[in-house]
Amino acid sequence: MAKQRVLSGIQPSGRLHIGNLVGALQNWVKLQNQYECYYFIADWHALTSQYADTSQLKDNVKDVLVNCLAAGLDPEKATIFAQSRVIEHAELHVLLSMITPLSWLERVPTYKEKQTEVNDKDLNTYGFLGYPLLQSADILIYRANYVPVGVDQMPHLEITREIGRRFNNFYGEVFPEPEGLLTEFPKVVGTDGRKMSKTYGNCIYLSDSPKEVEQKIKTMTTDPQRIKRTDKGDPELSPVYHLHKIFSSKEEQEQVAEGCRSAEIGCLDCKKVLIRNLLSVMEPIWERRNHYLGKPDLLDDILSSGSEKARQTSIDTMHEVRKAIGLGHI
Amino acid sequence: MAKQRVLSGIQPSGRLHIGNLVGALQNWVKLQNQYECYYFIADWHALTSQYADTSQLKDNVKDVLVNCLAAGLDPEKATIFAQSRVIEHAELHVLLSMITPLSWLERVPTYKEKQTEVNDKDLNTYGFLGYPLLQSADILIYRANYVPVGVDQMPHLEITREIGRRFNNFYGEVFPEPEGLLTEFPKVVGTDGRKMSKTYGNCIYLSDSPKEVEQKIKTMTTDPQRIKRTDKGDPELSPVYHLHKIFSSKEEQEQVAEGCRSAEIGCLDCKKVLIRNLLSVMEPIWERRNHYLGKPDLLDDILSSGSEKARQTSIDTMHEVRKAIGLGHI
Repeated sequence: MAKQRVLSGIQPSGRLHIGNLVGALQNWVKLQNQYECYYFIADWHALTSQYADTSQLKDNVKDVLVNCLAAGLDPEKATIFAQSRVIEHAELHVLLSMITPLSWLERVPTYKEKQTEVNDKDLNTYGFLGYPLLQSADILIYRANYVPVGVDQMPHLEITREIGRRFNNFYGEVFPEPEGLLTEFPKVVGTDGRKMSKTYGNCIYLSDSPKEVEQKIKTMTTDPQRIKRTDKGDPELSPVYHLHKIFSSKEEQEQVAEGCRSAEIGCLDCKKVLIRNLLSVMEPIWERRNHYLGKPDLLDDILSSGSEKARQTSIDTMHEVRKAIGLGHI
Repeated sequence: MAKQRVLSGIQPSGRLHIGNLVGALQNWVKLQNQYECYYFIADWHALTSQYADTSQLKDNVKDVLVNCLAAGLDPEKATIFAQSRVIEHAELHVLLSMITPLSWLERVPTYKEKQTEVNDKDLNTYGFLGYPLLQSADILIYRANYVPVGVDQMPHLEITREIGRRFNNFYGEVFPEPEGLLTEFPKVVGTDGRKMSKTYGNCIYLSDSPKEVEQKIKTMTTDPQRIKRTDKGDPELSPVYHLHKIFSSKEEQEQVAEGCRSAEIGCLDCKKVLIRNLLSVMEPIWERRNHYLGKPDLLDDILSSGSEKARQTSIDTMHEVRKAIGLGHI
């Protein structure tokens, strides 16, 4: 039986951090063995909010690609491509735009939220409103069966399903309904205890050096009520312990938690264990990063051949789409 | 010196009538000798309002093409193509959408007008709002110098110029500013004296037979105050005389006008002159129509090779566009 198809994308909006690794990338790596996976770098999506300055766009695309490969994505298993290199996405986007009620786009929760949240950019554009529609085209053009999503992205998938159904109703059955692969990613806290996010400047980046990682962990906040070495602490109040839960073994988690509660170990002891474990997770990633960073031609080849493969699949779908609508040879 | 470039499109929204002939088509024929012309059949644009039933779309595209050729367009001189066959239009549309403020689209006068006017279709779609943006992409992708426009289309050209300027400001000079070739088309009245329009059912179609044309003219309304043959009439009140102004010589115009005012000729006499002149305009058109209608493969070839040529020009522009934004090979 043919493998079911999975589609997922990531925006090239800057350097990736260990939150992205534990969230998206490691999940992608897992899925590539089980499904026929199409993973894309959403460079057009990046333009929906970052249209005014695109000077970093190409470097960001490259950085995302390097990190995908460093995290363990295998171009022999998964198709890795750039959205902008498969222009059929835009063709489907235009065609779907004809049947998509404005109100469906206006009611997507993230639309108003992000407009309120982001103050340094003008998001009152046609493209920003159409973001979920472009995303629908990205998914539908591969006739994907599954899309990995977090809970907050469910409305985006829902609109994709609605648009696909509407197309099928008007023109005949072309698109299957994609289902969400609901994945509960661990929430990764940053060095200051808040959610890890570029905006907060609290990230551990995949591009950081071992020294930088060590330094960032060493200066992390811990249980704020444990002031003296002899004070007993509550590990649940320490961001360091939250990272232990992701990067340390169960056994070590228990040891540092117990050591904290009893004040048998100090915060620096606890951090040293985390540093060791985090470095051992990151070492093979850094090794692969360095391997690929030294081979820019190989990177371009990987993205080009992935994009070519994705394009073939897209062309097949668009052939069906045009036939269904009544476009093409007269 | 290279010829300046002209871009124009026509919607395949049904059979063409002599209003379209005298308005768009004859102007296109004239321009093809003077400019490097790109003429497209706007099948995607047709979908902005006719998405719910596309069963006639392919026939309509064919009909427009046949009528363009019948009117005298020469595929050796002008590039005639289908919008949907040059998918780079969609790529540019998506990229321009990122920098286009919603308010620019919402304020296009035809947007609200058409929404109020059209009651049998739901035009509250993302695609209908984006119509002038898609049109901007159609024009800019050919880096056209001129666009033939009527007065009512000036706002559409203005938004194209604004969007082109905005792109150039963000990413560097790629697009020239297209200028309007303001053409005062004679207003063609229909058989009932109102503007000739499919909606009113008062059209003389290019696909009508000589018998049908004759019959339609014979039953046309004339000066409503000239009831008896002996009543003196006012030619300016007669729709028949308006058609004389387009299809008859100055001399004959004066003769029928004078004959009407003095009651020397009857309405049927006046109509017979119009019928003769109209048929002599339409005969070579009908001849070419029949020639092409008998050669469906030739029609497809003409549209395919025109679309291929248009595509090459579009690809050249998109190469510049992608480079300017920072998309493409990493």
